[in-house]
Amino acid sequence: MIAVTRRAYFCAGHRYWRNDWSAEKNREVFGACANEHGHGHNYMLDVTLEGEVDAKTGMLINLSELDQVVQERIITRLDHRNLNMDVPELGDEIPTTEVLARFIFEQLDGAFSAGRLTRVRVFESNDLWAECRRD
Amino acid sequence: MIAVTRRAYFCAGHRYWRNDWSAEKNREVFGACANEHGHGHNYMLDVTLEGEVDAKTGMLINLSELDQVVQERIITRLDHRNLNMDVPELGDEIPTTEVLARFIFEQLDGAFSAGRLTRVRVFESNDLWAECRRD
Amino acid sequence: MIAVTRRAYFCAGHRYWRNDWSAEKNREVFGACANEHGHGHNYMLDVTLEGEVDAKTGMLINLSELDQVVQERIITRLDHRNLNMDVPELGDEIPTTEVLARFIFEQLDGAFSAGRLTRVRVFESNDLWAECRRD
Amino acid sequence: MIAVTRRAYFCAGHRYWRNDWSAEKNREVFGACANEHGHGHNYMLDVTLEGEVDAKTGMLINLSELDQVVQERIITRLDHRNLNMDVPELGDEIPTTEVLARFIFEQLDGAFSAGRLTRVRVFESNDLWAECRRD
Amino acid sequence: MIAVTRRAYFCAGHRYWRNDWSAEKNREVFGACANEHGHGHNYMLDVTLEGEVDAKTGMLINLSELDQVVQERIITRLDHRNLNMDVPELGDEIPTTEVLARFIFEQLDGAFSAGRLTRVRVFESNDLWAECRRD
Amino acid sequence: MIAVTRRAYFCAGHRYWRNDWSAEKNREVFGACANEHGHGHNYMLDVTLEGEVDAKTGMLINLSELDQVVQERIITRLDHRNLNMDVPELGDEIPTTEVLARFIFEQLDGAFSAGRLTRVRVFESNDLWAECRRD
Repeated sequence: MIAVTRRAYFCAGHRYWRNDWSAEKNREVFGACANEHGHGHNYMLDVTLEGEVDAKTGMLINLSELDQVVQERIITRLDHRNLNMDVPELGDEIPTTEVLARFIFEQLDGAFSAGRLTRVRVFESNDLWAECRRD
Repeated sequence: MIAVTRRAYFCAGHRYWRNDWSAEKNREVFGACANEHGHGHNYMLDVTLEGEVDAKTGMLINLSELDQVVQERIITRLDHRNLNMDVPELGDEIPTTEVLARFIFEQLDGAFSAGRLTRVRVFESNDLWAECRRD
Repeated sequence: MIAVTRRAYFCAGHRYWRNDWSAEKNREVFGACANEHGHGHNYMLDVTLEGEVDAKTGMLINLSELDQVVQERIITRLDHRNLNMDVPELGDEIPTTEVLARFIFEQLDGAFSAGRLTRVRVFESNDLWAECRRD
Repeated sequence: MIAVTRRAYFCAGHRYWRNDWSAEKNREVFGACANEHGHGHNYMLDVTLEGEVDAKTGMLINLSELDQVVQERIITRLDHRNLNMDVPELGDEIPTTEVLARFIFEQLDGAFSAGRLTRVRVFESNDLWAECRRD
Repeated sequence: MIAVTRRAYFCAGHRYWRNDWSAEKNREVFGACANEHGHGHNYMLDVTLEGEVDAKTGMLINLSELDQVVQERIITRLDHRNLNMDVPELGDEIPTTEVLARFIFEQLDGAFSAGRLTRVRVFESNDLWAECRRD
Repeated sequence: MIAVTRRAYFCAGHRYWRNDWSAEKNREVFGACANEHGHGHNYMLDVTLEGEVDAKTGMLINLSELDQVVQERIITRLDHRNLNMDVPELGDEIPTTEVLARFIFEQLDGAFSAGRLTRVRVFESNDLWAECRRD
């Protein structure tokens, strides 16, 4: 079994806050992530495809295609953006690393002409990441 | 499937040595790790939980809980410690990265109120790590 | 000459925007950093002190003091904050890496009981950093 | 389940080019990787073995054996080499990261006296890697 | 004093070889770097400018200018290239990290509309780098 | 001005403790570093030489010489060692990062046939390092 993983980068702002909760409850559950004016992170994104290696090119997928899809579907939409306000699909969801991983998996699934998307990893920092894997 | 991984750090000393072996055999099997006065490392620890994302919080588990458990059960016990002398549960075991990974998995298993511990990775250096996974 | 450097971390949000400029000019000069709802970064901060090593402790400065000062004067004020809105001293300044480095140098200068602050480095990402040095 | 992973390093040159394709097609498919005089990378190699931990040594495999096998079978053959010209087994294959991962897996499979090779990861850069896994 | 540093990346191939030396002498002085078909590296380049921070923009230099100059003068010329064959200015020089640092400094010096180039660092790997500084 | 820096690695154990102080004072000044059985770190060492680039070799100093000197004078003496017990020159000094940087500078100064040692940096972790520079 062969898999290839491509890493990409974006920076974004966010805040953890629920309007249907009191300020006290928001603070209790979300801690400093509930701070009024938000904050942000340098995110890293690892996209993993599995599949067959083309005997002619030695490639599972051409990286120029992989890069273009990730750029168009993810980076241009999230980079230098506010995740609470600039990503309508997230609706009222709290933009945690887990939620982002699932969102990005859904955006990328089915978008490649070769290989099969099996895993998306999103790193919020060096010390925290979430992954969404196909079962 | 969603997984979240948290990285933590500790530094510790250790030595590889068996009293029931000759000095020659200790040296042959353990090399410089058998040096008389021990040495040490900056360890990194990656703790991975899998589970469901809570729709209200966007979280698989609240990081404040995850951090507190890892701090109490692992970091306060191993950080700035000597693994041969300060961790009774290890008994006479050689404190290799493999043994540490299994020990930490056992200490953390069942300790979280949400998610399921599926993997512990311990890095002794950038170039060597061990993982303990649930089968 | 001996110097010691301590690295600390904070994450924050920001936006580059001047009210006395048109949207077009803001976009032209600041690019994606002018996006309406802001974004953010994981910052790293390196604080360097030079001085004499105390013969009794082997230390230029006790790290517990260094950590406490950096925590109180910088991390608690910038971490999980919005640099445009939560740092009054920055006034209307654009919170670039250069401006942050100078601000942090000023906040830390004179705050240590031993050693002499000679350099502050602020990394906005792995690929961009600014330093403020004493001439 | 216990796994141990060892990281090794090599640097090598390569070029993506098929003689049975026109220059235009090579350029179209391989981009800058088709440049006439080749280029190169600092590769990282992660070798993962799974198995039982020896109760006497605390080790899945003695690292001195693991290091020696990786050194002899991989590093001495690839380090400071040109992957197109210096590795006969690759024949006319394009030396992509995917092809290298499979080649290295085949070279290492069955070479260890303990543990079972389950994964080889090859990093061409921080942003691109391929893995070959046993199904 | 304020300085800003920008990191860029390129990968390239090279070989250390002097035609006016015997193969034995080349091997003795250059070791594996003299291997016949060359090899390559992932290089990192840190460009440092010092100067005044513009009060309106908070910037020492606009990063879009800095990036464009580095891209045009360095990256497009060295990335995915062979340093022995594709860089006429290097003539017969051995393309060591030291020689590259000086070459890049000369290419960038005087190219920026603000700030003053004070240092170029070239990393051949994580473990070796050279810097060219203005005296 | 050209400088070249080489990074090397060693792991070692240590403890901060003064026999002429009470346990309370040791604990107050040294914190967890005073723990009875010691601990340890993965150290990184950056050795910087400045000088002229040899026109024939493109090198400030041959890396094989640089590596050999660092290996013989530092790595073989400190790696897998206990800094309190295995380094007689340190005497009763507390083996802090500052003390190590000065010790290593003294051991390396004058040992190279080309270039001039201008800086030694010792990293105890990613977040703490000391440097010894020639004035």
